Amino acid sequence: MTDGNETTRHVRTNQGYLMVLRQGDDVFARLVELARNESLPSASVAGIGFAHATFGFWDAQARQFTPRAFRNVEIGSLVGSLAWKDGLPSPHLHAVACDDTFAAYGGHLLSLEVSTGSMELTLVVHPHRLERVTDECTGANILHLP
Amino acid sequence: MTDGNETTRHVRTNQGYLMVLRQGDDVFARLVELARNESLPSASVAGIGFAHATFGFWDAQARQFTPRAFRNVEIGSLVGSLAWKDGLPSPHLHAVACDDTFAAYGGHLLSLEVSTGSMELTLVVHPHRLERVTDECTGANILHLP
Amino acid sequence: MTDGNETTRHVRTNQGYLMVLRQGDDVFARLVELARNESLPSASVAGIGFAHATFGFWDAQARQFTPRAFRNVEIGSLVGSLAWKDGLPSPHLHAVACDDTFAAYGGHLLSLEVSTGSMELTLVVHPHRLERVTDECTGANILHLP
Repeated sequence: MTDGNETTRHVRTNQGYLMVLRQGDDVFARLVELARNESLPSASVAGIGFAHATFGFWDAQARQFTPRAFRNVEIGSLVGSLAWKDGLPSPHLHAVACDDTFAAYGGHLLSLEVSTGSMELTLVVHPHRLERVTDECTGANILHLP
Repeated sequence: MTDGNETTRHVRTNQGYLMVLRQGDDVFARLVELARNESLPSASVAGIGFAHATFGFWDAQARQFTPRAFRNVEIGSLVGSLAWKDGLPSPHLHAVACDDTFAAYGGHLLSLEVSTGSMELTLVVHPHRLERVTDECTGANILHLP
Repeated sequence: MTDGNETTRHVRTNQGYLMVLRQGDDVFARLVELARNESLPSASVAGIGFAHATFGFWDAQARQFTPRAFRNVEIGSLVGSLAWKDGLPSPHLHAVACDDTFAAYGGHLLSLEVSTGSMELTLVVHPHRLERVTDECTGANILHLP
């Protein structure tokens, strides 16, 4: 679980994994790496931490996300899932971020980088290999159940 | 798990269920249906999605909820429980909803309908049949532990 | 699980515990008591409820939390972990709190007391005894993985 002089980023639990990510870590990349290395069929994720977060709200007409970045925010909650799309691990994460006035912002995460502090994530692994499929009507990325 | 030409809405996992609800689905009704069909004693719920949400804040004097509806919001997080009351499944759900400016609103959910997109819910099932009991003093609906 | 005429505050589940805390309960103290009494190695926590919450945002220069208290708020989500520090149970909890206008606030919890209503918490227990370590550079309290 260590890579050279890098500190440990996860341990196995009875249900899946506990991850502790550190300053500078790309949360999406770390989840993708874990899903690939451990061949996770699918998983549910929950966590907290301190981060730079970019959210995106789906513009149905333009069929793209309108982004907004928040730096140095407490992640009050992060909830999501891990599945696969086109042969690659596909995290789907939502979060609520709170700034230094305690105001809350959030939605669909486009990117997340750990800032000064850490990010603690709990993964519960499921036995089904699940795929995401793009809904042609809405453009939404849907978790397909067998 | 399919009903006629309807797509699958849930799969069993090691701890309970993974649900993927689709546009137009009533989240409370779907959870009630699952709890009844599968005779779930009790469960914890967590999830994310895109929805129309109505929250209610308890007015202790009037002993009723003051409601407010939000349409087409990202559910940044949904957390709650499933139990039973008066012989019927009783979901208790809180959520934080984020609009197209990324501002966050939330609290106790009165209703929730999936909008363009989906709602992914993870259920962890518990072995105890748990009942909710109305607290006579506060009017609050309390999960009773045996 | 009962203490004299006090009502039951937790039951064991397949993965850990379900707690239902009641008006006036100190959430941190109850989690510390459970962790000590049950010798929990570590755990992940998620929950909802109605509470008085005090959040703190870390002031890196002053190396202390700037606090702000919110009374009688719906806890839209609470997510965190239980570990140990200096021989004592150490909860790390974040939350998003929603007031009677449904506006959301949140971040790192410094204290949390159940108000009129209850607090429902789901704990998933992990097999590793985990310790928190203060990061000398940032002052952050980091969950150390073995």
